[in-house]
Amino acid sequence: MTDTETAGFTGRKAQASAWFRALQEEIIGRFEAIEDAAVPPLYRGEAGRFDLKAWRRGDGSEDLGGGRMGLMRGKVFEKVGVHFSEVHGTFSEAFAAQIPGADKSGGRFWASGISLIAHPLNPRVPAAHMNTRMLVTSEAWFGGGGDLTPLLAYQRDQDFVDTVDFHAAMKAACDTHPGADYAHMKEHCETYFHLPHRSEPRGTGGIFYDRFNTGDWEADFAFTQEVGRKFADIYPGLVRRRMIEPWSEAEREAQLIQRGRYVEYNLLYDRGTTFGLKTGGNIESILSSMPPVVKWP
Amino acid sequence: MTDTETAGFTGRKAQASAWFRALQEEIIGRFEAIEDAAVPPLYRGEAGRFDLKAWRRGDGSEDLGGGRMGLMRGKVFEKVGVHFSEVHGTFSEAFAAQIPGADKSGGRFWASGISLIAHPLNPRVPAAHMNTRMLVTSEAWFGGGGDLTPLLAYQRDQDFVDTVDFHAAMKAACDTHPGADYAHMKEHCETYFHLPHRSEPRGTGGIFYDRFNTGDWEADFAFTQEVGRKFADIYPGLVRRRMIEPWSEAEREAQLIQRGRYVEYNLLYDRGTTFGLKTGGNIESILSSMPPVVKWP
Repeated sequence: MTDTETAGFTGRKAQASAWFRALQEEIIGRFEAIEDAAVPPLYRGEAGRFDLKAWRRGDGSEDLGGGRMGLMRGKVFEKVGVHFSEVHGTFSEAFAAQIPGADKSGGRFWASGISLIAHPLNPRVPAAHMNTRMLVTSEAWFGGGGDLTPLLAYQRDQDFVDTVDFHAAMKAACDTHPGADYAHMKEHCETYFHLPHRSEPRGTGGIFYDRFNTGDWEADFAFTQEVGRKFADIYPGLVRRRMIEPWSEAEREAQLIQRGRYVEYNLLYDRGTTFGLKTGGNIESILSSMPPVVKWP
Repeated sequence: MTDTETAGFTGRKAQASAWFRALQEEIIGRFEAIEDAAVPPLYRGEAGRFDLKAWRRGDGSEDLGGGRMGLMRGKVFEKVGVHFSEVHGTFSEAFAAQIPGADKSGGRFWASGISLIAHPLNPRVPAAHMNTRMLVTSEAWFGGGGDLTPLLAYQRDQDFVDTVDFHAAMKAACDTHPGADYAHMKEHCETYFHLPHRSEPRGTGGIFYDRFNTGDWEADFAFTQEVGRKFADIYPGLVRRRMIEPWSEAEREAQLIQRGRYVEYNLLYDRGTTFGLKTGGNIESILSSMPPVVKWP
């Protein structure tokens, strides 16, 4: 590790990075198990398997970190990405000015995290997004969250059971940490995953937090782990609950159109996409969040 | 017309606006004639017709202008928008600071133009974009251009005859005005319609110009008319040339994937989209540029 400026956090970086990598492994296992459980008549053909691909950031002239992309095109998961990354380098001056502690680190940063976007084939199965990460400059903090995106109108209601259960899981994660304000994180999610040009929410919410640093790193890390664990439990549960429901052509059409909102959001507003593009991230990994088929009729 | 600040240009605004409206009519006629010319076995069903829809900008509490959207879902044109607009109002302070003459107009502006995006069904038929407009603050100028987007790799070459012919038409428009620097406008188009995150051009180019004001308004207007006329000749010609070619499933798949680049460009970089969203434009009209079906496999 060459970035001495962020070296005060070496042990913590290693712990966090190992966790994100382990969580990627865990979720991949659960998603592949779902593929194995998909049977005719609704699902035919081979169970999907993740295609894992290591990548290095930059042109190879210096060590800037990298990661491991995991992408699956399966029969339940039409397209799902579960990516791990651990990167470091120097922010551009303009970008550094917006980031806590980057002035004192000389613009140096380290970041590791997991990001997941799932686009199921069956329109009755909600899409989902989860992303947790640790950031280090001269300070260290966590960020991330998880949110649910049902595609069909009758499911895009706060009272729909999938959303109720998803919210309960995210609340349970927050309940493990006195400093994790569920109501605030839920509201942050709603505010953030919103399409101003359409005055529409992207999905039905979840939690979102950023620059989370209560001064107790161990507790903050434990919280971020809990968010990952709760997501890894609830989302596969929701997929298994809905994947057995047959769907109509009209529902598939509605799903493909609703997916267009997802694309609009990610390219117009998503800071993860922006961050990735501005820091020379892995295009293939960043844009793997795009749904496999989309319609703007 | 309530905007007295831009009233010095009243006659010119009326002339330009009438032209853009007439050009919309002209192009709509040519595209519908193409639909009529599409025959089995490649094309079946009814010839497409434009759905025309008048719209007003804002919530109706004040006159902010509006326009006439023209959208067709046909058998040759899977989706094509040809929109006319004439709008006026006041820029936000931040936006006004970036616009010539807006300081002296008290932020008041007037704009009229035509914008066109065509997404043909047949992957052998190139997509195209054309947009010309007149802007008025305390100054008046024209902007716009036209560019071609072949979707298949073998067509995305500067030597491919469709692109050669398209460039020749745009050059011919520039040749009518001593102040229209073709080489510069061609380069501007290449620089502008570029996807930095992929280091890829969006299409094979054309011309692009902005803040075009040589001091001779009549000549500048005549040039903008010529761009419209040349486009209205060459593009329908290219459509008729290619629409008779049968296509393969693999070509259709390649087309749907290449269309994804179009979406990425429009939502990440296109200033027309940004301008529209920032000035409370007609979402339906702005996002009608989205291709009807897209894949990110």
